[in-house]
Amino acid sequence: MTFDPKLKPLSLDDADMEALFGDARLAKQLRFILEVEKLKTVLRRTPLLDISRRENDAEHTWQLAMMAVILAEYADEAIDLTRVLKMILIHDVVEIDAGDTFIYDSVAMQDQEEREKLAADRLFGLLPDDQCTEFRAYWDEFEARTTADARFARAIDRLQPLLHNFFTSGGTWHSPGVHRDLVLERKTPIGKSSSRLWDAAQTLIHEGVKREFLPETLADNPLFPAAE
Amino acid sequence: MTFDPKLKPLSLDDADMEALFGDARLAKQLRFILEVEKLKTVLRRTPLLDISRRENDAEHTWQLAMMAVILAEYADEAIDLTRVLKMILIHDVVEIDAGDTFIYDSVAMQDQEEREKLAADRLFGLLPDDQCTEFRAYWDEFEARTTADARFARAIDRLQPLLHNFFTSGGTWHSPGVHRDLVLERKTPIGKSSSRLWDAAQTLIHEGVKREFLPETLADNPLFPAAE
Repeated sequence: MTFDPKLKPLSLDDADMEALFGDARLAKQLRFILEVEKLKTVLRRTPLLDISRRENDAEHTWQLAMMAVILAEYADEAIDLTRVLKMILIHDVVEIDAGDTFIYDSVAMQDQEEREKLAADRLFGLLPDDQCTEFRAYWDEFEARTTADARFARAIDRLQPLLHNFFTSGGTWHSPGVHRDLVLERKTPIGKSSSRLWDAAQTLIHEGVKREFLPETLADNPLFPAAE
Repeated sequence: MTFDPKLKPLSLDDADMEALFGDARLAKQLRFILEVEKLKTVLRRTPLLDISRRENDAEHTWQLAMMAVILAEYADEAIDLTRVLKMILIHDVVEIDAGDTFIYDSVAMQDQEEREKLAADRLFGLLPDDQCTEFRAYWDEFEARTTADARFARAIDRLQPLLHNFFTSGGTWHSPGVHRDLVLERKTPIGKSSSRLWDAAQTLIHEGVKREFLPETLADNPLFPAAE
C-alpha cells in the first residue's frame, strides 16, 4: 500500500497548538505525545522473533510493559505496578535524541549518560511543568535503580532481549566480543530484582552456549577478529 | 544491517518449555509473551507521523499507553490507571489471529466480533488459568465498554489515529467513503469518556475539513468512485 501523495507531516509550534485547542496545557501534552512518537523510528539491534527485521524502541517498550504485567509476581520485593509501567513507558524516549546504545558496545556506553541527560531535558521539557517534573523523576529513578520499582523495570528490560536472542538461535550474541561471561555480567540486574527470573535468564544463557547460539569464551568470539 | 544467516526462530512447545525452565507456570507465561510478540507484525492503516510507513499494533499500543498516562486527568469519571493500562496493553492481541479491521470498512466489521472472540480464546488460553481469566475479563470489559476504565481506554484508542490523520495532512481520511459525519460518528466513544478530549477531537475534525485533509460530505469522497 502506498500513501496518498498529498500526505505530508503537519508541524505546529506551541503557539499554533495553543491557538488550535484554546488550551496551553493540552497543547503541550499533545506536542509531547507527537514528539515521542518518533520512538517508532529508533531501531534496536534485537531481531523480531521471526527475524524479519530489527525491533524499534516503541514496540520494544510495549513488550516490556506486557512482560511486567504478566511477570510481576516474580519481583522479590513489593512493587507498585503503576509506577513500574510509567517508568517502562518513558524509559527509552531519550533515545529519540541520543540513539540506542548497544549493550555490548563499551565505547558508545562511555558518553551515553551525558547524551541521555540532555535528551531528557529537552523531551520532558515539552510537558507542562508538573508532568515534566513527574516524568523526569521516573526517568531518573529508572536510571538510578535505587527503588524496587526501578529494579524490576530494569530486570524486565534486560530479560526481553535475552529471550529474543535465545529464541532466534543467537540474535545479537554473535556480535564481536560477546561471550557467556560478558552476557552473565550484563544481565546481573535481573538478579537484583527477581531470583526466579534470574534463574530463568541463567538457564537461557547456559542452554544458549550448549546449543551454540552463544560463544562460550572471548577466544571463541574475539572483539577484533583476525583478518583472513 | 543483515542478520547472521545462522539465525532462525526456535520454537519450543509447552512440554519443552516446562522441561527447560523446570516450572509449568513460568513456561506458560513465557509462551504467551513469545506468542503475542507477533503483534509487531500486524499492520494498521495509520501512517507514522513521518509517513515513512504504516504503524504496527505493538507500537500503536505503546503510544496509547503513553497517551493514557499523560491524558488521564481528562477522564470525566474516576478511573483506575493500572486497569486502563492493562486493558490497553492487551486490547489488540486478538488481531494476531483476526487481523486489524479498518474502522471505515463496514464489511469487515460485520464478522469482526466472532473472529476476535476465537482469537481471544486461543491467545489468553496460553496463560496459566488465573491469568487467562484475568486478561480475558479485561478484554471483554474493553469490548463491552460498561466501565469508566474501559470507556477511557476506548477513547484513547479512538483519539490516536485522529491525531495521526490530522498531523499527516489527511492520513487515512482519503479512503473511499470517509467524510466528516462518518468520522464524527466513529469517534463518538471519545465523548463517552472525556468532554475535554471530545472537544479536541471535534476541533481536529473541523479543522481537518477546513484544511481539506478530510472530505466534508460523502459526495466529495464516494464509497464507489465513478470510473474515469
